Amino acid sequence: MSSTFGANFSITTFGESHGEAVGVVVDGCPARLELNVEDIQVQLDRRRPGQTSLVTGRCESDQVAILSGVEDGLTLGTPIALLIRNEDVRPQDYAQLADVPRPSHADFTYQAKYGIRSATGGGRASARETVGRVAGGVVAQKWLAREFGCSVRAWVVSVGQEFSGPINSETVTREEVDASPVRCPDPQASARMVEAIDKARAAGDSLGGCVVCVCRQVPPGWGEPVFDKLEARLAQGMLSIPAAKGFEIGSGFAGSAMTGSRHNDLFVAKNDHLGTATNYSGGVQGGISNGEPIIFRVAFKPPASIALPQRTATYAGQETTLELAGRHDPCVVPRAVPIVEAMAALALADLALAQRSRGL
Amino acid sequence: MSSTFGANFSITTFGESHGEAVGVVVDGCPARLELNVEDIQVQLDRRRPGQTSLVTGRCESDQVAILSGVEDGLTLGTPIALLIRNEDVRPQDYAQLADVPRPSHADFTYQAKYGIRSATGGGRASARETVGRVAGGVVAQKWLAREFGCSVRAWVVSVGQEFSGPINSETVTREEVDASPVRCPDPQASARMVEAIDKARAAGDSLGGCVVCVCRQVPPGWGEPVFDKLEARLAQGMLSIPAAKGFEIGSGFAGSAMTGSRHNDLFVAKNDHLGTATNYSGGVQGGISNGEPIIFRVAFKPPASIALPQRTATYAGQETTLELAGRHDPCVVPRAVPIVEAMAALALADLALAQRSRGL
Amino acid sequence: MSSTFGANFSITTFGESHGEAVGVVVDGCPARLELNVEDIQVQLDRRRPGQTSLVTGRCESDQVAILSGVEDGLTLGTPIALLIRNEDVRPQDYAQLADVPRPSHADFTYQAKYGIRSATGGGRASARETVGRVAGGVVAQKWLAREFGCSVRAWVVSVGQEFSGPINSETVTREEVDASPVRCPDPQASARMVEAIDKARAAGDSLGGCVVCVCRQVPPGWGEPVFDKLEARLAQGMLSIPAAKGFEIGSGFAGSAMTGSRHNDLFVAKNDHLGTATNYSGGVQGGISNGEPIIFRVAFKPPASIALPQRTATYAGQETTLELAGRHDPCVVPRAVPIVEAMAALALADLALAQRSRGL
Amino acid sequence: MSSTFGANFSITTFGESHGEAVGVVVDGCPARLELNVEDIQVQLDRRRPGQTSLVTGRCESDQVAILSGVEDGLTLGTPIALLIRNEDVRPQDYAQLADVPRPSHADFTYQAKYGIRSATGGGRASARETVGRVAGGVVAQKWLAREFGCSVRAWVVSVGQEFSGPINSETVTREEVDASPVRCPDPQASARMVEAIDKARAAGDSLGGCVVCVCRQVPPGWGEPVFDKLEARLAQGMLSIPAAKGFEIGSGFAGSAMTGSRHNDLFVAKNDHLGTATNYSGGVQGGISNGEPIIFRVAFKPPASIALPQRTATYAGQETTLELAGRHDPCVVPRAVPIVEAMAALALADLALAQRSRGL
Repeated sequence: MSSTFGANFSITTFGESHGEAVGVVVDGCPARLELNVEDIQVQLDRRRPGQTSLVTGRCESDQVAILSGVEDGLTLGTPIALLIRNEDVRPQDYAQLADVPRPSHADFTYQAKYGIRSATGGGRASARETVGRVAGGVVAQKWLAREFGCSVRAWVVSVGQEFSGPINSETVTREEVDASPVRCPDPQASARMVEAIDKARAAGDSLGGCVVCVCRQVPPGWGEPVFDKLEARLAQGMLSIPAAKGFEIGSGFAGSAMTGSRHNDLFVAKNDHLGTATNYSGGVQGGISNGEPIIFRVAFKPPASIALPQRTATYAGQETTLELAGRHDPCVVPRAVPIVEAMAALALADLALAQRSRGL
Repeated sequence: MSSTFGANFSITTFGESHGEAVGVVVDGCPARLELNVEDIQVQLDRRRPGQTSLVTGRCESDQVAILSGVEDGLTLGTPIALLIRNEDVRPQDYAQLADVPRPSHADFTYQAKYGIRSATGGGRASARETVGRVAGGVVAQKWLAREFGCSVRAWVVSVGQEFSGPINSETVTREEVDASPVRCPDPQASARMVEAIDKARAAGDSLGGCVVCVCRQVPPGWGEPVFDKLEARLAQGMLSIPAAKGFEIGSGFAGSAMTGSRHNDLFVAKNDHLGTATNYSGGVQGGISNGEPIIFRVAFKPPASIALPQRTATYAGQETTLELAGRHDPCVVPRAVPIVEAMAALALADLALAQRSRGL
Repeated sequence: MSSTFGANFSITTFGESHGEAVGVVVDGCPARLELNVEDIQVQLDRRRPGQTSLVTGRCESDQVAILSGVEDGLTLGTPIALLIRNEDVRPQDYAQLADVPRPSHADFTYQAKYGIRSATGGGRASARETVGRVAGGVVAQKWLAREFGCSVRAWVVSVGQEFSGPINSETVTREEVDASPVRCPDPQASARMVEAIDKARAAGDSLGGCVVCVCRQVPPGWGEPVFDKLEARLAQGMLSIPAAKGFEIGSGFAGSAMTGSRHNDLFVAKNDHLGTATNYSGGVQGGISNGEPIIFRVAFKPPASIALPQRTATYAGQETTLELAGRHDPCVVPRAVPIVEAMAALALADLALAQRSRGL
Repeated sequence: MSSTFGANFSITTFGESHGEAVGVVVDGCPARLELNVEDIQVQLDRRRPGQTSLVTGRCESDQVAILSGVEDGLTLGTPIALLIRNEDVRPQDYAQLADVPRPSHADFTYQAKYGIRSATGGGRASARETVGRVAGGVVAQKWLAREFGCSVRAWVVSVGQEFSGPINSETVTREEVDASPVRCPDPQASARMVEAIDKARAAGDSLGGCVVCVCRQVPPGWGEPVFDKLEARLAQGMLSIPAAKGFEIGSGFAGSAMTGSRHNDLFVAKNDHLGTATNYSGGVQGGISNGEPIIFRVAFKPPASIALPQRTATYAGQETTLELAGRHDPCVVPRAVPIVEAMAALALADLALAQRSRGL
């Protein structure tokens, strides 16, 4: 079920980039959770275009409406449908694309898959699809916070070749992240990233980057062996985000170059529970949370929409030069932050319900 | 459903490391596929312990029996149950572990999750669980090969800090891979890796490493937007393998430091179809295969079982020194190769059926 | 996933009876199917209240909007979101119900399940939830008709103790069904049923009834052994309809009193294919369609909302007399006809995709 | 996933009638449940052939082996694989069937679906497939009993045209049921049923019948609106049993002829909780259990395998007379009793876990 993520706590998203609306149905959220549009709007505003000069100029207010599942500010346990109308739709921007698949976009593959594609922009392959995820992710985050005290916090650690200095993942706040226009809580790195993005836009080019995410106060026991391991579900969730090309948890790729004697996380008594002295495991062992912070990193490629002319080919195989009109992000990672948080929270909420069903 | 992977072409694995048997039920494999035990045994032999001095000394012949779903050498379309008995079981090796959770193993988390754990070794968290995946993966590989001409080939590209030189992913063969005791088709690198593993074992330590996998002749159109994107399902599959800590496709993490103008894969006419001049996308765009080779990399941490004494704590929080008995791999990546191939083939077969259901 | 039906061709419904809206997300419908609001409206109009004096006086125009998944009148293969606003909402009608669970309604069980319930009418337990099913079912019916020539036709065979005479299930048309205000194509029986309903309403009482449904031109091979047998999925779909209490296929309960020699459907050559001389099997054998018409029957209990005073108890266990306000149907079976058709078509479409994935 | 039933508490069955073995993987059973082979054997013995002269003479001891998921008599929370070898296999009995599909069997439909069929008997369509269900159902029944005090009890209420007198569903015991060779706890009816079966066998014919099942001590709140309603999942489970043609819950088909004023189950205080004075609802309202006994009925057609010659057609459409060899049941309903219990328990256990995940 391609448009549904999660088994017990699930979202089903819908909507094309330049269609009537985008939205989500959240099913399985436990009842009696306080929820209102303001809660959701906060994260949508962090994702929406037009926040700063660094991102796309498409102008969407992204006002969410709650259509079902909530009464008097409390969830009913029934499906929560959230709707966001598209406003600044410009299908005419895409008329030039009838014959030419945009390089590294999904025009060619959607055509191959469906025998048709949305003639107006990216359709479902557009990052606009993630509006529904962010809205649904708020529901998951609120429930995790109320029920378990969990928090999910992501931030940018690289833009192109500019890298953040060390960040304290145990204490960094959403306010510190949002103080930076690129959502990198290292002010010096943030400034360099802003400059790099400005330069890329001026050059008609684009930049990728990486996002780190930490999930705090996740109790031990979440994650379902063997195919729904916590890291497996997180990896699926992250690689389902447009432009994501990589995922690593804990020590990740660097850990593959370490020795076991250095990599092993030795157990130590921590107040009332057993913890680990290091956290190369990233908070999971055997696919199950161990009570330490869950920390992972996601790589995003540079956006495929660039202003520079590209020497490519038509669907028919004729060489051509493509110059893209439209309004595009030179760098998506600042806006990816709430999307990563949403997918992480959704994966966790689903696995939390699975674990709680055991009565442990 | 934690022990099941796949919706249309699925596997369900079972079995503890030191229990009676391990096995798999493959459901959804199309009928009339030729299948016999020899086909399966080949890949099981590539995974099994005791192949060389480089891997664990546990002695398992891993002989597979086909219990159902095949008649006169042809699949019936019904569930294919494959059973492999455990032989060299030594539960006594684990008696010392009653009070002490092994660092970076799953003892602590299984106890937290289930309120009980297999007293005899890793149970389901052991790499022995992957026997069923490898057996099931053969079925997927055979079907993909017959039906679409697809092949799935993995190899080792790093062991600890030893890295392979460039390998031609379009041509490398399984024979070339298996010519190396560590399954690295670069002979010089292979020799250095063997040396590194020998050294680690002698030191009572362990090493991680990385595996690359290429899927060739995958037709355009596989992968289900938006949450069952091809790379999302591959990432789930790979991160579900014990000790996996990272996944990247195409340009991966390195791609996040590139510019869009360099990263975009420009279209070019290739014989009778449209291809791309480069393949930074790794064969997928918008979560759907584009006809180019699908290429990805998986990072594995060093095995947690080391002979060196470890200063850790008991379940009760008492400091203790743990010295592990038992027979363990100083490096698992050579044996991970057929596991990676299996999970890749299973993800592809499932998505192939989904796409074929459209009648396109 | 309680609000989702189907694996490959699925619907996810949302919406409370007296909330903002009801709707559905149809996922997995193949691309390039012609679809417009008029197609959907026809079936919604058959389901909506206020059609005749025989059904509830709630006044809903049930105008559907297509929010996604369709462009220029063709499906894109992406999720189709359909929205129907609630109009004639009267939450005040339900104020009396704060302390008293309505007998044979879901007030008590929703409260037990969720710890909360919609204060305004039936919430998700209301038959209003089925609006989304009917809308989604149109998509399935259109696709089945275009792709396979299948048709799905239901009609009323009993209302209370009034029973239809024999109907030719192979030829009966939707027009013949709709010519009757109770959707019973036997005119004499129809007249008696109308009279019975009028009498029940006048008495402040309600009546149940039965619906028969036939699916024609279903090719052999649909239905997935062993738990997704065609009849098993139909049964799930039918028993998920509010007020449904029974399902039988082919000979059904009567068949259990027959001998095998009479019940067996002997094979006979029929033009270019093998058919059966009788159809006690109801078009399925071993859970798989055999090419004969699929025919089944669904029993609906009398509506629980009656005007007559009822001697019942409060949530707290105090005896009380309940007299229900609100606008209710004395008999739901005429409106159940398009719901039964919708669920049948959705079950078939899902199984059709599963079968087509085999390439047979 | 055709061979899997259940989402959180699931079974996956495998095995052909005349192949190596049949079996089941039970996934999601909570840990620390006492389980041993004797528990399972008891129900397998109630299902197995050769118990009395009334059923098939195929001789199978149906000895179960636990391959995984249990250690020291306690479940580990991991998949429980249960294996039963086939012993009395006589493929030669089926040689005559190469050209002729047996009437009302699944030979024709399996061939249509898969392009191949098991040459040796019914394959997966045989009732032998249900061995795995019965074994898995024991696990569910044990867990339901320990965790909630639930019991599931089924019995035969009709064989052909012989019907049981009233049975007290609240008190009837398994011992009372098994005291009858046909599992009908009404001794007079039982005697008539035995006679009817003997007569049918002597005539080379077969008889159908009905089974009633009651689930006691099911707490309020189980069943997931709207598509996984308790009765919807029960209906799916029951119609997935070979030869099942109908399902009804509570008042069922008879209820469709009643008035609402009579059918409504009025609430009454019962000791410490709210119950209902009658139980026409069959223990569910709005798809959710209400705390009253869940009671339903399943109709089974007469077995298709009869000794009488049948005038039918070959696959090629040629008229022929078929006389079946082989060992067959003249009436399956006595052996269906433990199968019905198994499927009911599996449906309940799955929904129990879903409900418990809410923390209510």
